[in-house]
This record gives sequence, C-alpha cells and structure tokens, in this order.
Amino acid sequence: MSQSSVHFHRDIPKIPVGVLGATGTVGQRFIVLLCSHPWFVLKALGASSRSAGKPYKDAVRWKQTTPIPSGVSAMIVHDCVPEPFKDCNVVFSGLDSDVAGDIEASFRAAELAVFSNAKNYRRDPNVPLIVPLVNTIHLTILPQQQKLHIHPLTREPQPLLRGFIVTNANCSTTGVVIPLAALERAFGPLESLVITTMQAISGAGYPGVPSLDILDNVVPYISGEEEKIEWETLKILGGIIDEETEAIDGKKEKFKKFDMHTTSPLRVSAHCNRVPVIDGHTECVSVRFAKRPPPSPQQVREALAAYTSDAQTLGCPSAPTRTIIVHEEADRPQPRLDRYHQEGAGVNVGRVRQCPVFDIKFVVLSNNVSIGAATSSIINAEVAVLKGIIQF
Amino acid sequence: MSQSSVHFHRDIPKIPVGVLGATGTVGQRFIVLLCSHPWFVLKALGASSRSAGKPYKDAVRWKQTTPIPSGVSAMIVHDCVPEPFKDCNVVFSGLDSDVAGDIEASFRAAELAVFSNAKNYRRDPNVPLIVPLVNTIHLTILPQQQKLHIHPLTREPQPLLRGFIVTNANCSTTGVVIPLAALERAFGPLESLVITTMQAISGAGYPGVPSLDILDNVVPYISGEEEKIEWETLKILGGIIDEETEAIDGKKEKFKKFDMHTTSPLRVSAHCNRVPVIDGHTECVSVRFAKRPPPSPQQVREALAAYTSDAQTLGCPSAPTRTIIVHEEADRPQPRLDRYHQEGAGVNVGRVRQCPVFDIKFVVLSNNVSIGAATSSIINAEVAVLKGIIQF
Amino acid sequence: MSQSSVHFHRDIPKIPVGVLGATGTVGQRFIVLLCSHPWFVLKALGASSRSAGKPYKDAVRWKQTTPIPSGVSAMIVHDCVPEPFKDCNVVFSGLDSDVAGDIEASFRAAELAVFSNAKNYRRDPNVPLIVPLVNTIHLTILPQQQKLHIHPLTREPQPLLRGFIVTNANCSTTGVVIPLAALERAFGPLESLVITTMQAISGAGYPGVPSLDILDNVVPYISGEEEKIEWETLKILGGIIDEETEAIDGKKEKFKKFDMHTTSPLRVSAHCNRVPVIDGHTECVSVRFAKRPPPSPQQVREALAAYTSDAQTLGCPSAPTRTIIVHEEADRPQPRLDRYHQEGAGVNVGRVRQCPVFDIKFVVLSNNVSIGAATSSIINAEVAVLKGIIQF
Amino acid sequence: MSQSSVHFHRDIPKIPVGVLGATGTVGQRFIVLLCSHPWFVLKALGASSRSAGKPYKDAVRWKQTTPIPSGVSAMIVHDCVPEPFKDCNVVFSGLDSDVAGDIEASFRAAELAVFSNAKNYRRDPNVPLIVPLVNTIHLTILPQQQKLHIHPLTREPQPLLRGFIVTNANCSTTGVVIPLAALERAFGPLESLVITTMQAISGAGYPGVPSLDILDNVVPYISGEEEKIEWETLKILGGIIDEETEAIDGKKEKFKKFDMHTTSPLRVSAHCNRVPVIDGHTECVSVRFAKRPPPSPQQVREALAAYTSDAQTLGCPSAPTRTIIVHEEADRPQPRLDRYHQEGAGVNVGRVRQCPVFDIKFVVLSNNVSIGAATSSIINAEVAVLKGIIQF
Repeated sequence: MSQSSVHFHRDIPKIPVGVLGATGTVGQRFIVLLCSHPWFVLKALGASSRSAGKPYKDAVRWKQTTPIPSGVSAMIVHDCVPEPFKDCNVVFSGLDSDVAGDIEASFRAAELAVFSNAKNYRRDPNVPLIVPLVNTIHLTILPQQQKLHIHPLTREPQPLLRGFIVTNANCSTTGVVIPLAALERAFGPLESLVITTMQAISGAGYPGVPSLDILDNVVPYISGEEEKIEWETLKILGGIIDEETEAIDGKKEKFKKFDMHTTSPLRVSAHCNRVPVIDGHTECVSVRFAKRPPPSPQQVREALAAYTSDAQTLGCPSAPTRTIIVHEEADRPQPRLDRYHQEGAGVNVGRVRQCPVFDIKFVVLSNNVSIGAATSSIINAEVAVLKGIIQF
Repeated sequence: MSQSSVHFHRDIPKIPVGVLGATGTVGQRFIVLLCSHPWFVLKALGASSRSAGKPYKDAVRWKQTTPIPSGVSAMIVHDCVPEPFKDCNVVFSGLDSDVAGDIEASFRAAELAVFSNAKNYRRDPNVPLIVPLVNTIHLTILPQQQKLHIHPLTREPQPLLRGFIVTNANCSTTGVVIPLAALERAFGPLESLVITTMQAISGAGYPGVPSLDILDNVVPYISGEEEKIEWETLKILGGIIDEETEAIDGKKEKFKKFDMHTTSPLRVSAHCNRVPVIDGHTECVSVRFAKRPPPSPQQVREALAAYTSDAQTLGCPSAPTRTIIVHEEADRPQPRLDRYHQEGAGVNVGRVRQCPVFDIKFVVLSNNVSIGAATSSIINAEVAVLKGIIQF
Repeated sequence: MSQSSVHFHRDIPKIPVGVLGATGTVGQRFIVLLCSHPWFVLKALGASSRSAGKPYKDAVRWKQTTPIPSGVSAMIVHDCVPEPFKDCNVVFSGLDSDVAGDIEASFRAAELAVFSNAKNYRRDPNVPLIVPLVNTIHLTILPQQQKLHIHPLTREPQPLLRGFIVTNANCSTTGVVIPLAALERAFGPLESLVITTMQAISGAGYPGVPSLDILDNVVPYISGEEEKIEWETLKILGGIIDEETEAIDGKKEKFKKFDMHTTSPLRVSAHCNRVPVIDGHTECVSVRFAKRPPPSPQQVREALAAYTSDAQTLGCPSAPTRTIIVHEEADRPQPRLDRYHQEGAGVNVGRVRQCPVFDIKFVVLSNNVSIGAATSSIINAEVAVLKGIIQF
Repeated sequence: MSQSSVHFHRDIPKIPVGVLGATGTVGQRFIVLLCSHPWFVLKALGASSRSAGKPYKDAVRWKQTTPIPSGVSAMIVHDCVPEPFKDCNVVFSGLDSDVAGDIEASFRAAELAVFSNAKNYRRDPNVPLIVPLVNTIHLTILPQQQKLHIHPLTREPQPLLRGFIVTNANCSTTGVVIPLAALERAFGPLESLVITTMQAISGAGYPGVPSLDILDNVVPYISGEEEKIEWETLKILGGIIDEETEAIDGKKEKFKKFDMHTTSPLRVSAHCNRVPVIDGHTECVSVRFAKRPPPSPQQVREALAAYTSDAQTLGCPSAPTRTIIVHEEADRPQPRLDRYHQEGAGVNVGRVRQCPVFDIKFVVLSNNVSIGAATSSIINAEVAVLKGIIQF
C-alpha cells in the first residue's frame, strides 16, 4: 500500500467489511489486502456451501506467498447469504460469474454496498464499471441504480438507500485503459486501438490453466476476453450523459446514460493470449489519436508520467503514488521485474515510440491480481468512502 | 520431409555441400537436415578458428534432440575459408552476422553458391531475400548480382559464373509473410498490417537468452527485430521491376530493382516479444486490404488453405505438402502442439476472424528453427537446383 | 518403433485390439502407437458414457503433437463394456483407477486379454506386474490367474481360457527398475536403494497439475507415488517361487507366488517430486550391492550398456534396440534432449559414479508417456503374442 | 528483516561497509539488504575495471524486483583495491571465484574484515566457513588466522589486528546444514546422509544458465556442487579442536583445527540438479543417526521447530525469528510459495517421515539468494559485531 496518504484520513472510523468467494483466488487476495487495511476490518467470509461452517483454514487451499493472516485462520466461513454479513457496510465479491449474479443481487437488495470483481453486472446500464485510476466519476450513476432498483425475487420496485453494486473491470482491460485515459486527458479522444495481450496464468484462477496447456506454450485464445476489452474500454473511457425521456404521463424525466465513447467513436481490436507467466499482463498497444498532428512519443511519455488519478488526489490509501511508471530502458517493463512495484497498484508503460501504421505504440504491464482485480475493488470502495457514498 | 515429391527427380545426382557456422544452433540444424537429404551430401564443415582442426563432435556443444549423425561426428571442422570447400557446389551459412559479411563474400567470390541465414546481405539491392514458399521469383536478380560483382578484396569488377548469395528472411518475418502472400495472391494488395510476435527462445541461438530473463517472464523487446519485419516484408512481398538507366556513354541499360511494395504502398507495424517457449513463433496479425469490400473470414480461410507455393509445385523435396494449415479450433495453433507438423516446413494459421479496426485478424504459428531458418535455406537451394541455377 | 525386428514375424496376422479410456492422456498415446503398429489393428474405442456414441474426434480433447490418425477420427466411442469389443483379442486400458477395477474385471471375465496401465491390480497376487524390459518371466503366473478366476459379479469360480489381466508398472518405477534389473543380472542382488525422482507433469494426465502449482516451482510430493516405487520394485525385481500348500482333502497343491525380493531383502526409499518438465522422469539413485567388494563405476557402465531385454531378444517390434543408453557426458541425460531417443522405448542412464554412502550412484531418465505407460503395455502384449499366450 | 531484535542494540553506531563485486547478482542483493540495514552504511562499491569510474546505475544490469536504491544509483564504482575502501570497517564480497582469491587477500592484508560469499577460502584451515544459523562458534579461529597471516605479495609474516576473512557456505550446503545442525543438537551425531538437490537458476548468477538448457528440462549436474556439499557439511557440522604441536625450538604450541566431523565419522552423498525454478533450492534428505533407536518423525519435527540459532539469541537484526519453519501439509515446502517467508532468512522443512533405508527423510527449502548467499554474509558480520570481533 502506498504510504502517501495513510495520514490524511485519521477520522475515518473502522468500517466492517465482508468477502464473498473468500476461498477463491481473488478472495484470498482480498483477505491479504484487507488484513492490513487502515480502514476496513474483515468481519465475515462467504463461500460455497461446501466450505460453509468450516474454519477458513480448513476450507481454503491457500495459494498466496504469505501465510494466512492469523486473525482469519479460525474465522468460520458462511454461506453467501446476507444475514451473516448484516454488520458489514461493504462486501467485496470475488465470486465466480456462474453464481455472482444472484448472490450479488441479493446482497444489494439487503442494502449492502457490493464491490464486485465478477463480470455479471459490468454491462448493466445502471451499474458503474470503474477502474479506480480512471473513471470514478461514473459513481454518479449510483443514485439512479438505487432509485430504479427492482427486488430480485419479487420483481417489485424497491428503491435502495445504501445498497448498490459497483464493478471493476476485467484484468486485461484495467491495465490498458489507465494509460489510454491518460492519453485522452492530455490529447483528446483516441480513434483506433489495436491491443495484443500476453496474459498471466493467475488471471484464470485456480486450478485454472492446466500446466500441460501452458508450459513451453502460448495459447492464443481466452474465452470472452477480446470482447471484454473491446466493450469495457468504451464504457470506461466514455463519459456519462444526461438524457431526457418523456414518461407516459408526459412529464420529462432525466436519465443518466453511459456514452460508450459514441460522441467520438473509438474502434478497438484485441488479440488475447495466455503465456507462461505467473502474475502480470503485458499488452502491446498501437493507438491513433483523433487530433492531427498527433503527439510525439516524448509528449506521450510526459503525459503518461504526469497522469494523476482522482483516487490518489482524494487520498485513497491503496492508490499508487505514481499511477503510471514510464520506463526508459529498451526492454522494459517486464512482468517478473516490474509487477510488484507499488504493490502492483499502478501500471508500467515502456517502449513509447512511433507506430508506422497508427501514431504511437507502447507496452503496458499491469499486475492482474492487484490493480487488475482485488486492489481495484478496494480502491473503488475507498473512493466511495471518501465521497460519502458509503455510510458508516 | 514431405514425401510428396521425393520420387520426382530421380535424375538429380548427389550434390556436395558445405555448412558454415557448423557448430552454432542453425548450423546444427543444417547438419540434421542435410544428413537425410535426398540430393545434398555434406562434405565440409566450417566454424571459427577455435573449432578448426577438431573432429566435429569435440568442437560442438550439440543441443539437438537427436544424436549427432554418425557420419558427421568425426568430420574435421575447417576454418571458414573457401579452399576446403572447393569440392562443394553449395554452402549453407549459419554464421553469426558479425562475421558472415566477409566470409560469405569470400565464398561467393570463390564461385560458390551461398545460401545464407544471416542478415548481412538481406538489404543488398542485388541479393534476393527469399522465403521459399513465397517469392522464389526473386532469384531472377541473380544474373545481375553476378554481372555486377566486385571482388571483395581487390574491389575490382569480377563477374561471376556460378557464385552468388541468396539470403532467407528473419524467422519472425518468414512466418508471417507466408499467409500474407497467400492473401495478396487471392485478394490483391494489402494496405496496413499490425503484427505482434511472441517469439521462442531458440530464435536467439545458444547460449542466447539467459534463463533468469525469461522464466516466468515476457521480454517486450528483441533488438532490431521490429525493423526487420517492417522492412523485409516489403522486399519479399514486393515484386521486381525493370528499370532503364542511361549510362555515361548514352546507352540505355536495363536494371532489375526490388519494388519494395511501393506500387501499392503497404504500412507495417511490428511489436516483438520474447516468451518462454522453446520453439515456434506465434504472431497476432491485423490486416487491412486495399480491396473494398474486403474478403470475409471464410474467404480468407479458404484462400489460405488453398495456397500452394512454387517450391511445392516445382517438387522441392523439403517443401511442405500443405503450405498453410488452417486450424478451426478456437484455441489453435499453439506452439507446443503444432510446431512440428510437416517437420516445421509449413505454417499454421488459426482464429481467422473480423477485425473491428482493420478487416481481418488471425494468428500465425511458424517453426522458427525449421521454415524460419535452416529449412528455408535448403528449400531455396532446392529451387535453385530445379531451376538450373545451381550447376552440378 | 525400433527397426530391428519388424522383419522377423511376417507370419503374425493382424490382431484386432481395443482401447479403454481412449479419450484420456494414456488412451491417446495408445491410439498413436497402435495406428502405426505392424500387428495390432485398432477396432474399438471405449470411454465414459459422456463420450459414448460420439465420433472420437468430438469426444476427445486431443493433446498429442501429431494430429488424430485419420482412421480414428470418425470411429464411434463405446461405453466400456465387453460387448462392442467382442471381436478384439486384446484390450489396452488407459482407464483411471477409480473405474479401472470393475471395468477391467468385466473384460477379463469376458475372456479378453487386458493390458492395463492402471494401478488397481498391480498388487493382486495372481496378476503379473510387468516392465517388459525386465520381468516378462512373470507372465508364467497367468495360468494360475485363469484357473483361480472368480466371476466378478456372481463371485462363482469361473476358470478362464483366454481372459487375463497383465499390468505394467507405475511410470516412475518403470524407469528405475530397468537399470536396477541390469545391475542385478550382472552383479547379483541389490541391498539398499535411495531414489529421488523429478517427475514430469504429463505423468499426472490432463488437466492434471494446475499451472499455478508448477510454474517456477517444485512440488515435493506426489500422492501414493513413493509407496508405489518402494513396493512395485520388490514385486518386479523379485522372482516367482513355487510353494506347496496342503488342501482340505490332504492333497498337496502347487502355487506360484511372487517372491517380493524377500530371498535377498532389499530396502527401497523413494522421494518423489513434481517438476516443470513436460515429458520425462529424471531419477537420482544411490545403490548398495549385496556383493562385496561392489562393482566399479566402469563395470556398472558396461553392464548397463550390455543389458538386453527378453522383449528385444524375442523380437518385439516396439522394444528398443538399446535397452539402456549410457551417457558419458557430465550433464546427461536430460529430459528435453534425451527423452525421445528410440521413441522413448528405452531408458537413459548417466553420471555413473562412486557413492560416498552406498556403492554407486547414477541418474536415470525415462519417457513416462512411452516406456513409462502405453509403450510398456504394448510391448507386454507383443511378448504375450510371441510366447503364444494370446491366441489369434 | 525480522523485526524481533531491531530494538536491542540501539547503541551500535553506524558502521561503514563496502561491497566487492557490486554489479553481480550477489552484489546487487548485498546492496538491497544493506540499504535498509539498521547498522551498516554502504560507503563504497567495487567491481571490475570495466565498471570502475562509472555511476553504479550505468555499470550494472540491475535484475532485482525492486528499483536500485536511490542513494546508490549515482555512487561511483571503484576498482577492487583497498584504497577507496579505507574508511570501511567491513567489506562484503560477492566476487566471482576466478578473481576473489587475490582481491580478498589484498583487502584482508589491508586490515579490512572481509565477509565473502566466494568459495576460494572455504577450505583454508584458518578461515571459518560459517552458516550463521549453525556454527558461529567457528569465529574463534580468527585470532589464529590473524596471527599466522602471511602477506600475499611479500610472502612475509604479517600478523593482523583487524583484517580477516570469513566465508559463508555454498547455497545448497547452507540450506541443508541448518536442519542437520538442529538434529545433531537434539539427538547427537549423524552417521549417513543422502541428499538430492533441485536448485534454482539464480544460484548460477547472471547470465548463468541459458534458457535453452533449462526450460522444460532438468540438468542433473552442477559443476563442483556435490563435492562442496559433501565437504563443507563436514567442516560446518564438525567442531574445532585444540591440538598441540612441537615447534622447532622444542616448545609446545597450541593450534586450533577444524575437526571435519572425524570424531564421529559422517558419510555424505549428494546428487545435484538444476531445475526451472527462479529462486529457492529444494533438497530431499535421508539421514541415519548414530543413536539407536533413532528419534521418531514427531521427535524430529519438534526438535527442528524448537531449534534456535546463536545469531538470533545474540540479537542479530537480520536473523530469522524462526530458524526452521516446519510444515505439516503433505506437499510443502514449495519454492514458489515458501521461499520468501521471513525474507528468506530461515529455512523450511516438511514431509518429515520414516525412511525405509535410513531413519528419517524430509524436504528442505531454502532461499539461495538470501540465507544461501548475501543474507548469510550479513548475519555473519552482525554476529562479529555483537561478539566484538569487528572494531568500530
């Protein structure tokens, strides 16, 4: 955790939180991060019924490089139902997508603030898809999400007071949109993007990728991944627009709507590959700017290095001090050497140079298990705390 | 070796050949291939003075997965000078580029046909850069190369009768230009290409990439590699044009010149990466055709599968029966599973699909130590034999 | 396949065979080997009910480095019941041990000759555990197995005419017992063995070892593996003894019994590890001989190199020409370079040297998917054919 | 660094130190550790003449996962001669053995305390070979080393006041002798040891092991490594004995001499292997005790877990709080998960169980770049400070 801002918010009381999917890969990572968090206090763990009722240490196949935090070993794992989490203000979800939909909905309906790493609600028009170093402004959709909430079982309108769902992005999207956001802030809209990823095995969870498939190999395909990058990038980099619609009674109603970058159309093409790397997604990016003439490589380097996220400005304790580390060496960033800088909360960019087809090309390295997953959810929650969206 | 055409050329006598750089990675591969070749008979080995005078088995650190061929173990290694190769019609060069320039020149000047894997003469305006499954037509430059030859030491004109240099392309270029040539043959010129490579460690020779640099890692940089792909692709895919120049005495002279794809300009952008794979370069390609509307993915698949090389038509014994294997499975080709099909002499293409930015995107896998290196040189020599360019 | 003996047995007619567990890793390997076998003709495939009824190519996740043999792609997969295999003389079983027990019993009861790679019957006192390069003499137990057969369902005695089960050994046992057998043949009984294995991931099948468990890692434990080496080695290297027992009616009956090396007790200690290697088990062995003084390293090297298996002497087409390749280089054998010699049918030994604690130490490398699995079963069947045990 | 004892020695002033071989792998590690050390202050860097005169950041190919410490980047690298180190009390040597001999001798002769990671003086009868968690008692040889010192150039006697050389052990020896020392302390002398190592690539430095040699491979040989384990273990675990010799003048002189475990002979056999692991040596050990009956596995586990080093008792800030972590899980320790516990300063033992040949077998994992190299040198120096051997 970056030291920069731990001092700022002494008046924030301890906030009780829970973790859903606590025995999975992302859940384990949430636990490691939360056990040393300055504000959040881990109070409840949820997992499948196979694990429920067991002490955490017996339910989990712990695969982190640090031992299970001592306070967590003996915590009893619960089923993923809201009742045992009723003292929590926030739950972090590392659930698999095959169960995340219903469970997260039930927690939201029970007035819990859900920060989810799952993909299920990313395309929901009232759910913000937030990369905390990019578009925390999208949290402004939350009042609309609460107002329009339909109870998941009764299907009756049930406006919410405190419950909501915030999702973070797919790991490979997260890494790349951070420098892209920096470029758009500095030079205006992008027009075309070709992105090729080389993704770590940890992105597939555990047991995940069989070793016979990846040792001495590249798998040039990850199910659904290219579509996620191509779609999520538009939602994240696009703004929120206010629209008026006429209701049945003739009254005008204002709605917020994700712009999907349609005001200035952006075409994105992704090639996704799995490589024999444990942690850290490397992505090769060629970009074309709308602006002519486009910025020079040096201007791009400077803009990337200067980029500061709202999360950092606000003083989120888990936000990196340097959002983007720009490398000058010809052969960096590299996952093995650069993935743990700032505990994986920022991203690394290198090889910024002219592209003979588009304008600029470069390499991004992001830590898929940190900023690409649990760390993003946690910074999102920190932002929500600092903006007063989470009540405690 | 493909069986297809072994029968065709019974009347080709045994042709004595030599290998330069015989102890290196490419040299070892030449030796393996030549020892089972139907026409070529290995008669002489050249290496550095450190190895000269030793039996091959004592000079080499043999790193192939088959033992040193029995007939080669005891062959005495020579210095890389023409004299001990005087009974050879052809030499194959696996020399490092820091010495290949002078040595290959001296062999050409001694009237030997040199087929080189080194980069030194690839940009020479009179030396063909040939991927044997693509542009054997470029051999037509050879008479001009011979006619204009300058002796490397005396710097005097020395027209040649039998000596010449033919180079093959860089391994990562080779893999990708084969399907690109198939597309241009079927659909006309390409306009833009973005290529991202994931290259095997064997491409760097031995000792090559230190294990500490590549285990659990990606290195997003290979010195000079992107420039090679971006430049060589133009020379290989471009044609040869006839130009007339006026000589000092007023007479018109005809010259052949590589077109460099300038008639229909093609922009190429490459991102090159080293990955922890032993053999087999994987490349992700996005292409835009000049033709509008562009072909559909299915048309592209069919054109790739139907592509036949001149080398195969001529009956080269080392040419693959299927130049391009088109995979239908979502996650293929993969280096570990597909690199040895047809002994690595063809290429594999998969995931042919629409590109949201350009027209079509796909994945190419080629065996960098086979068609990407020694196999290309050997097929080039086979073509030269069948076209009567090599006298024997 | 070794060329040596293909010519010997021209009079052996084609023998129809089936494969059980045909979609698994070992089953795929059986199919590759059988499709180019000079005697055996693949007639039937069995797999789980999930696969039954489908063409093989749709039932399997093919993970071999060669394509599915053309004749097999369209074969319909059957349930693992004897009826669809009734035209086969032999079935090869690559079944998982959780189902192999009942299925193999039912095939034996249906008078089929079963050659099994599964562990279920290895400890059966009437089932031979055969490493074909070591103890084919153990096939002499088969008449007793047939005579004493109890029907698996009725539990009634059912003496068999043609049905029987032969098992081959665990992959890590197989590799090491071959040189141990050579040592015992040359120098008499061994007394103590300490064996440390470094086993390939392919030994665990597919999906098998998760990549997160083995990339940049060693797992110093393989469930049940050490016990297998310590027990199977005794059964394989021990002889068969004839015992007399008195039956109820006072008559003496002769029984054959596996000696388990008890005549000259042998202590075996194994340490088993999984390492990030795709194919090929490497094993470090320290041995103490009963004989004093023990043989020298040079005597051991010579005895290993001179060792010839019965399978080769008999003329089994899949037996290696050289049972044990003895390496002289300081750093060999190595899995990547040496595992495919003779198509993995022999074993490699190197670094034969004095042991400061015992007598001799050395390194063994064996191909766990070839001689360690399917190849052993097939050679066992070839031996049974040549000895007249399989009728056809 | 373990927190335990940072508080104890507030009165220790800052001690200026230097690093020899500062650009190498071990040198880089020394720099990382020294830059956060509570006592030692890095004042001078030495490397080859190729680096001398350059700022450190230009001289080094930095391969650590943390950036170059800010204070070190601009430090000018010196030649490895004593003069620029004259203000240092201590130098840590990460020199290659081909140069370490002369350089370390010259620094000792210049009255510097040298803590060396090189092998050159390990077998010197007056130089202690110290694993700081095992045999700091061997520092008592130092007065004799100083008294008998011969000037390396003049070859004249030159008794020293402050200069000396202390070596630490080879990385694979270090890991294994720690639990062995614990066993000898608890149960008396060991009698026989068979040790098989699976060693990380970082043990070979940079560039070290070529990736083509180790990806998908095991190399069953490391030059000189087995001899080191077999010899160093005896020097480290043996005591120091006092001997009397008669001088020429008839007077008796007392000498200290390393016992080499001869009082109770110990036989050691090592098998050394390189595996594709970045950091962390895994070793499989079978031991036989002199004591009959031998201890049970449970007694061994308890003795290992209870073992406390002198370094910790003295309060060395870099000593681990738990010298030996005993794992209960069936499949631990594993390098990837366990190598960084306590910053790699302790060792991990698991799978303690009965050995069918000897008494007990188990697995040791140690971090070869921490306790196996730089961390050992630094703790040795800390011990020397706390024992008053280093004056400052």
